[in-house]
Amino acid sequence: MIASAVILSTGDELTTGKVIDTNSAFIADRLYALGIRVAAVLKVGDERDKLLWAFRQAQELGDIVIGTGGLGPTADDLTSELVAEFLGVTTKRDAGVADALKARYAKRGVAFTANNLKQADFPDGADIIPNPNGTAPGFRVDLGQGKKLLWLSGVPHEMSAMLRASVLPWIVAQNGAQSTIHEATFKINGISESKLDDLVKPLDLGNVAKLAFRAHFPDLTLRLTVSGGAAQAERFASLRGQIKTILRDYIYADGDLTMEEVVGQLLLQKNLTLALAESCTGGMISQRITRVAGSSAYFLGGAVTYSNGEKIRALGVKPETLERVGAVSQETALEMSQGMRQRSGAAIGLSITGVAGPSGGSPDKPVGTVWASICMENFHEAKLLNLMVLTDRERIVQGTAQAALNWLRQLLSS
Amino acid sequence: MIASAVILSTGDELTTGKVIDTNSAFIADRLYALGIRVAAVLKVGDERDKLLWAFRQAQELGDIVIGTGGLGPTADDLTSELVAEFLGVTTKRDAGVADALKARYAKRGVAFTANNLKQADFPDGADIIPNPNGTAPGFRVDLGQGKKLLWLSGVPHEMSAMLRASVLPWIVAQNGAQSTIHEATFKINGISESKLDDLVKPLDLGNVAKLAFRAHFPDLTLRLTVSGGAAQAERFASLRGQIKTILRDYIYADGDLTMEEVVGQLLLQKNLTLALAESCTGGMISQRITRVAGSSAYFLGGAVTYSNGEKIRALGVKPETLERVGAVSQETALEMSQGMRQRSGAAIGLSITGVAGPSGGSPDKPVGTVWASICMENFHEAKLLNLMVLTDRERIVQGTAQAALNWLRQLLSS
Repeated sequence: MIASAVILSTGDELTTGKVIDTNSAFIADRLYALGIRVAAVLKVGDERDKLLWAFRQAQELGDIVIGTGGLGPTADDLTSELVAEFLGVTTKRDAGVADALKARYAKRGVAFTANNLKQADFPDGADIIPNPNGTAPGFRVDLGQGKKLLWLSGVPHEMSAMLRASVLPWIVAQNGAQSTIHEATFKINGISESKLDDLVKPLDLGNVAKLAFRAHFPDLTLRLTVSGGAAQAERFASLRGQIKTILRDYIYADGDLTMEEVVGQLLLQKNLTLALAESCTGGMISQRITRVAGSSAYFLGGAVTYSNGEKIRALGVKPETLERVGAVSQETALEMSQGMRQRSGAAIGLSITGVAGPSGGSPDKPVGTVWASICMENFHEAKLLNLMVLTDRERIVQGTAQAALNWLRQLLSS
Repeated sequence: MIASAVILSTGDELTTGKVIDTNSAFIADRLYALGIRVAAVLKVGDERDKLLWAFRQAQELGDIVIGTGGLGPTADDLTSELVAEFLGVTTKRDAGVADALKARYAKRGVAFTANNLKQADFPDGADIIPNPNGTAPGFRVDLGQGKKLLWLSGVPHEMSAMLRASVLPWIVAQNGAQSTIHEATFKINGISESKLDDLVKPLDLGNVAKLAFRAHFPDLTLRLTVSGGAAQAERFASLRGQIKTILRDYIYADGDLTMEEVVGQLLLQKNLTLALAESCTGGMISQRITRVAGSSAYFLGGAVTYSNGEKIRALGVKPETLERVGAVSQETALEMSQGMRQRSGAAIGLSITGVAGPSGGSPDKPVGTVWASICMENFHEAKLLNLMVLTDRERIVQGTAQAALNWLRQLLSS
């Protein structure tokens, strides 16, 4: 039974503060959902003595150890040889991994240098953990006393894929079916984390249910986990239903979906096409919409009209409107969405115009003043998105994209 | 002389993955600039035995220990009493801090409860570290053998203020001026991390210089640091020059700049305007260009032409071209860049058309086939960006944006 874990994050970029370690929080979050307590997170640089110290401590504190980093081909990638040294074994080249590496480089037409083969060396006796998103696989070794060490790539999107595909299923298999966890994820929009906390506080969680919030601007995620396998299925269903009732107005997705995925599904269902006219968001909404594979089925295109000239030329905004009320105004937003809809022939035109800052604000249109407009059959409105509370340009753009997509989602859902 | 430090980040929100720990990276970065090596970062939850374990380990590994979290008024704020226990002393109420707390609550009109006074209790013999941005001050205590433990608030904007106002000046006073570090950052494009490693391997770093790589796709960063203060200034300048010579073709920025910042600076310098015509990148390049504050000075706008219809309508691509060679082709790319340039009146039109996948590929145009084109005075070319090696849609889009911007940078620099 795996009850506790230690997470090791390694690399000089972490101990010199060059990079913020997001891997350990990601892993801790997933382990928490499986009911595994993280005893400690240790971060050390690419140094022999510190890595060996970390292995020793981790082995003592956790039932399993999950490490990241140091699997690459360069001289400061020490993981495999030091884990081998720690275990008192040698490293061994894995022929399958070596061949796959060579094939990968050949396919790219990139010269294969000898040090690339380092990524095929693992502590003797290790099980390979495949890396679907990168060159360097990870591995799993025995630490004795039933303890295991699992090592993954330090590159976040490689780590997360390896964790999901190999590590979490392995943990579930180790701990048996009664340890399986019921899990529901809700994506939240329109309230703060502390308000969310207040709203769910009355729920009776007992000792098998847990609620976790994760605020990753502009997203807020609520996760319910209930441990105890089939015996707790009913309790899980009941809590899940209560949450949906309490948070009805704020849940934009029942499941781990992004706002652009939800909007895309609604457009597909309703067989509607979308075109965008973006000013201050600079293409962020287009970019989010097209991040979804298959979005070409409903997304025709967008105009990023950063200058007044482009608003006139590409969208047909009237020069008098811009002169009379300015680019950041209800009228301009309305003309932008209508112009884009008419010209592209899309069923829906969505427009954004605002002041993202840091400069460009004025007393009556401070930084964070943003107008959105949606033009579709029997509907043509503009809405003031008040984002003055957000302090920086990037968050204003992100917050605007989220709010505009949520407005479209609400219209399409009603 | 303070040469090494251990950073402790504490709190259940860290070991359950609810919050990403940014404090330790912030502190590590500041310490690195002072020439202090971070031996390890330890994160533990609000648990007595784990905290005592962390104090013990930190005391052993570092000349100083900097901790954050657990200074508040609630029951799970254990820091002061456990540090006292660790040192074998009692806690003692600081009358000045207690009075300041009462005054602060009175001023805000908030009821002062007894547990708020907990924030005025410190290990006996501690020096108080003021908290200009919050209620709970920190403290500094002696760990023996000349070692010190310094504890700060875990709230990021309180921590950073305390670090800047009290901790860093204290460290500089302890260590003297010879301890400063020389640092240079280079942004790299066009080679892999392992090729970069090969190229810089011949450099004679001695024992005061260090090279660190950071791969954060699509970015690759190389950082040179030389410790030893003014005495090593010449060595630093020499190494810096050698790196610039060796990597000449691959350095896109001498300093910590993004590709879009470099391109923006070049456009400003040359007084040129840019317009974009994006297909498979879906607005990513627009979004990166406009992420730079002030980009409206050189960026007119962009067209995200996801459908063939939009390529014809918004850019004037010939229907015959699309029919004869398809949307992903040299001809279409050339017509897109020219159409955007002519219609917008921008000095430069840049276009992208390609297959980002996962579907839409064919034997002669597999996923990752991307054409870019640039149209400017006396220049109108298209270039095949071969991104077949990248496995997922998001990376193909990111890699395309980086390669296209780098091509534009090279043209503007030549």
